[in-house]
This record gives sequence, structure tokens and C-alpha cells, in this order.
Amino acid sequence: MEGPRVAVIGATGAVGEVFLRIVEERSFPFSQLRLCATERSAGKMLTVRGKEYTVETTTPELFDNVDIAFISATTEASKHYGPIAAERGALVIDDSSAFRMNPQVPLVVPEVNGDDLEHHRGIVAIPNCSTTPLVMVLKPLSETNPIRRVIADTYQSVSGTGSAAVAELREQVGQVLNNEPIRSSVYPNQIAFNVFPHIDSFQENGYTKEEMKMVQETRKILHLPELPVSATCVRVPVNISHSEAVHIEFERPIEPATVREILSKCPGVKVLDDPATDVYPMPIKAEGTDDVLVGRIRKDLSHPNGIALWLSCDNLRKGAALNAIQIAEEVLRRKLLPRQGKVMAWQS
Amino acid sequence: MEGPRVAVIGATGAVGEVFLRIVEERSFPFSQLRLCATERSAGKMLTVRGKEYTVETTTPELFDNVDIAFISATTEASKHYGPIAAERGALVIDDSSAFRMNPQVPLVVPEVNGDDLEHHRGIVAIPNCSTTPLVMVLKPLSETNPIRRVIADTYQSVSGTGSAAVAELREQVGQVLNNEPIRSSVYPNQIAFNVFPHIDSFQENGYTKEEMKMVQETRKILHLPELPVSATCVRVPVNISHSEAVHIEFERPIEPATVREILSKCPGVKVLDDPATDVYPMPIKAEGTDDVLVGRIRKDLSHPNGIALWLSCDNLRKGAALNAIQIAEEVLRRKLLPRQGKVMAWQS
Repeated sequence: MEGPRVAVIGATGAVGEVFLRIVEERSFPFSQLRLCATERSAGKMLTVRGKEYTVETTTPELFDNVDIAFISATTEASKHYGPIAAERGALVIDDSSAFRMNPQVPLVVPEVNGDDLEHHRGIVAIPNCSTTPLVMVLKPLSETNPIRRVIADTYQSVSGTGSAAVAELREQVGQVLNNEPIRSSVYPNQIAFNVFPHIDSFQENGYTKEEMKMVQETRKILHLPELPVSATCVRVPVNISHSEAVHIEFERPIEPATVREILSKCPGVKVLDDPATDVYPMPIKAEGTDDVLVGRIRKDLSHPNGIALWLSCDNLRKGAALNAIQIAEEVLRRKLLPRQGKVMAWQS
Repeated sequence: MEGPRVAVIGATGAVGEVFLRIVEERSFPFSQLRLCATERSAGKMLTVRGKEYTVETTTPELFDNVDIAFISATTEASKHYGPIAAERGALVIDDSSAFRMNPQVPLVVPEVNGDDLEHHRGIVAIPNCSTTPLVMVLKPLSETNPIRRVIADTYQSVSGTGSAAVAELREQVGQVLNNEPIRSSVYPNQIAFNVFPHIDSFQENGYTKEEMKMVQETRKILHLPELPVSATCVRVPVNISHSEAVHIEFERPIEPATVREILSKCPGVKVLDDPATDVYPMPIKAEGTDDVLVGRIRKDLSHPNGIALWLSCDNLRKGAALNAIQIAEEVLRRKLLPRQGKVMAWQS
């Protein structure tokens, strides 16, 4: 069989499961596939393209015979195995926040900054699931009319936290319906029939890490290190797909029709914008689809150069697994595997 | 018994029920109480302060012997009965959008612009449930540092639509848990495990009426007819309480500590802002309480004079019924009942 030798670290998690489905959908090529997880899941059987694989625990030696290692587990797992895998010659495509702001590490959405892959040193990071759809919209617009300021308020699904959070929402909803006491273990608060502005931990400046990821990652991906960005990240009782209310200030005035026209030509973006027939993005429409859905495109009434819009995006697909696979496809197309000798070595 | 003769039009609705509870809590004075609804609910018995009342249908003659008529039914009911009640000498306190932008009609949040009541002509409007908490926060801050721009993205509960929507959410959640087909009749989309940026109908400019209410009502209440305001109004699967992510630009820089200090002194506002111990507003915390809960107060990183914050408010209480009763209390305190002869007559 043709193709790279692939390992998936975190194969049994929420993103890992979607990852394997997308590998099948896109016929991603591989000559060998290793599925890894923690000891708790080791021994489990998973089927990919009709073939059964036994889930194994991750070992450093594994990476000696791996060309591409996808890591979507905990940040600690990424911090531990990322450098090990890179030093042993694998290309690491990492879904955690461990390396995103590291200057050695390209942070990549292929449609936006695929060229940044040329400078990788064995580790490539994929952005946070709330950053990816935002930059997919900002980048093509910024090429027509420079962006001066961005405000994004999010509506993020529980699958962004992982499978345990999806189970917790389902259990709590049942508890509410049956008038039983609400039990929260994944989240600090009840999520059923509630929302809260708390994703990841709080920082000194009053922002959460999740909000600061949106600020810093957006700047890095767009190569606009000073871009003013602000975000409020909110968890909502939705299973899959993140949504965002976005307010963009441009250098010059821009018409909603122009925004619609630009975005409708972008690969990976789908404009769903016909309020007259109740057509706009929603989580249940984005779930299971590859595109960033964009709608409610209108003048921002609070600024002469402003545009307001609304987007929804499957956080497990384009927000995570799909973007990781697209990075791998781009690396293969550009012949940038570390074992092909074009890249500099990883330095911890 | 001392006090005005009161009629409640829409006594069996979501707001009406809360209204009667608040009348009891606050010992609102009345010498007579008439509870009105549509024919479907007529004949129903409701208990207020231990006394049983029979729900009756609304008639024009009713208002001849009523001093204060609270209307919280449909906009059509308000348009029909509002002028009739005012012409027959009652003070109408109206919860619909029918009269809010009418220059004859004060649009009042007592803590913010109670003085506007002095100019009423028989009809006073209460703001939309997403506007009220916003102006409660903006007004005291604007007195220290003029406000230049406001962006608010909302997370609005289904009780804002009414009791039928609360029932629909509950039914749909059960349908999802049981893998049954989802039935939507109140909303154009599934609301269980979903969110959508569609509250009230769409306008020519791409905004919903709900969003334009926030823009126009905020300007009217603050007496700032040119204030730049933009909003995205989003329905979320929460039963009670609306939340808002708010971004405010001031004339001059302002510290989060100053904002916290100002707001903590405002009647009707409660600062819940200690991220270190997971203290911030949420719908389940606001439900059943009278205060606008405000937290996540921080610099808006996208503007040197900006503040970002997050609020939650019980949309049935301060967002509707409580505000209506507070208006009545203020009218009584100022002796502004139409039958007391100080106000000009209503002109349709």
C-alpha cells in the first residue's frame, strides 16, 4: 500500500473518532495505521476501512516507524509525546494548545496560511476550534479590505470539551426532566438549560485561556501580530458545532453584498444567508459538514466600516479532525515530511 | 382597601403569572384586581394573596373602573386595548413593542429614566427584555464616562417567547433523548440542543426586529438618539433568563475596577465577578432574582477605551413583570395616575 505510516494518539476520543471517519471519507492514504490511547482504552478494537485495529498504548519507540503522528488527547500528552515524536522523525500534527504559540511551530489552516507549513520543524499545530472558522472568514475579506478590529462572541458546544461532556449534558437534561438533583463533574456548573462564560481557565487579565487563544491565534495565523481582537467564549447546551457572532471593522466601508460574494467563492466556506426564508447557519446544520457556514451578513450599525455576521462550524471536523487531515494532505502535496529531509530538526 | 384599581391583561401568560407572584412579594397595593385573558383562559381561577379571582375576557368597559392596566399579551392586543384603556382614564403599562418608539410614550426603566414618566399621556411602555438589563448597566457608566459605541450579542431564553416555547423546548429535549422525530411549531427551527440567530422577524437591513429594538430602545431610554449600537440576538435552549456579551467603548479609558465599583453601588444591579472562584452571571443564577447580574468585567482588548462584560437577567422579572410593577410604584409615588389630573390625554 502507498502512503505515509500514520499514528493517531487519542484515537478513542471525541476528535479521534471523527478523525477516523474523515480518513475513510477522504480516502486519506496510509501504508500503516497505529491507533493509540491511554491504558484505559488499550485493547479496544476499532474498524477503519473495513479492517480491525487494536488500540495500543503510546510508546516513544512507536514514532521510529511513523511518518505522521496526529495527537488529539490532553495538552499534557501533547507536551510529552510531541517533541519525542518529532525528534524520532515523525511529523506531529497537534490538536492541543501546547505548541500553538511556539515560534518554531506553524499554526495552520490550509486555506488560510498553508504556506507556513514550509517552515515546520517536525511539529505543526492546528488552531483552537473557535479560531479556525473565524480566520476562514477573516482572511479572504482582509485581502480586499484590511481588517482593523474584530469582536467575536461564541456559542460553543460541549463536544469541544470531549465525550464526557456530551454524556454529562445528556445526563443532566434527563435529571432536569425527571426533577432529579443535577450532578456536574466535567463542568463547574450545570450546562443543561444553562450557558456560562467560562471555557478553559481564567487568566490574570480577566480573560479565559480560550478567549486569549482566539486573540493570539488569530493574530498569528493572519500574520497580523497587532490586530485588535476581543472575544467572549461561552459554553451552550449544544452537542456539536460552535457558533460565533462576529463584528468586523475594516479600513474602508464594505457592502454586505461584497462580503457575500467574496465568501461564496472561498473553498471551505458556505454562505447560508437568506433571512427571508429562514436560512442562516445553526449548529444542527453545521454538524457533520465540512464547511464553515456563514450568514446574517449585514452592516454593523455601530461603525461606518463595520460588518456583522454569524457563523457555525462543526468543531470536531473543520474545528479539529478535518483541519488536521487537510494539513497532512498539504504536507504530502508539498513533500514536507521530515523523513524527506527538507525540514530542520525539532529543538526542545 | 387602599390603592389603585388594577387590571392585568394577559394574566395567564408567562409574564402574567410572574407578575402576580411579584405583586404578592412586594405587597403592591390595590383596592381591586381584575385578571383578564383571551376566551380560551376565561373562567380559570387564579389565587392572589390568598383570594381567588376568576379570569375574565377583556372588554372596553372594564377600563372605566381601572386605574392601572398592565398589558402583557400579544402586540395586537396592546395595539387594540392600549388606546381604549388610556382614553377611558386608565394608566396603561404595556409590555409589547406596540408603543415603545411612539414619541407620546415614555419607555421606562425606573432606575434609569424614571423622570420620563412625568410626560406620559396614559400609556407607558416597558422595554424589550434584552434592552432593560443593558441600559441598567450602560446608564450609570455613561454618567462617569460618556459611551461612544455598544455591541451586544445575546443568549436569550425561550420563556421570552412565552409558555408554549418553554413547553416546546421540554418536548423536543425528550424527543432527542428518545430518538423520536423533532416537532417544531412555536419556532421555525429545532431549539433543543441548538441555537439560532433569529428572534422576531427580519427587517430590510438584515437585522431582526429584536435586534433593532435593542438599538432603538437603548437610544431612546438613554436619551442618546445617535448612539452607535449593534446587536446579534440569539435564541438558546435555556428556560428563563437572558444573557448578553457586551462590548462598550467609552470616551476615555476606564478601568475594570472603576466599572465594578460604579455598578456595585447601583440599585437593581449585582456584581458577580470573581473568576478565581468561578463566580460570574449565568441564567440559572439569575432566574427568580430581581437584579441584573454583571460579571466578567475586563478591558476590551480590541479598543483602548473599551470594556467587555457579561450579564444575565431574569427576562420575566426585571425584563418584564418586575419592571412593569416598579413603573407602577414610581407612578404612585409621583402621583401621576391619569385620574389624578396631572397628565395630558392620550391621542391616537
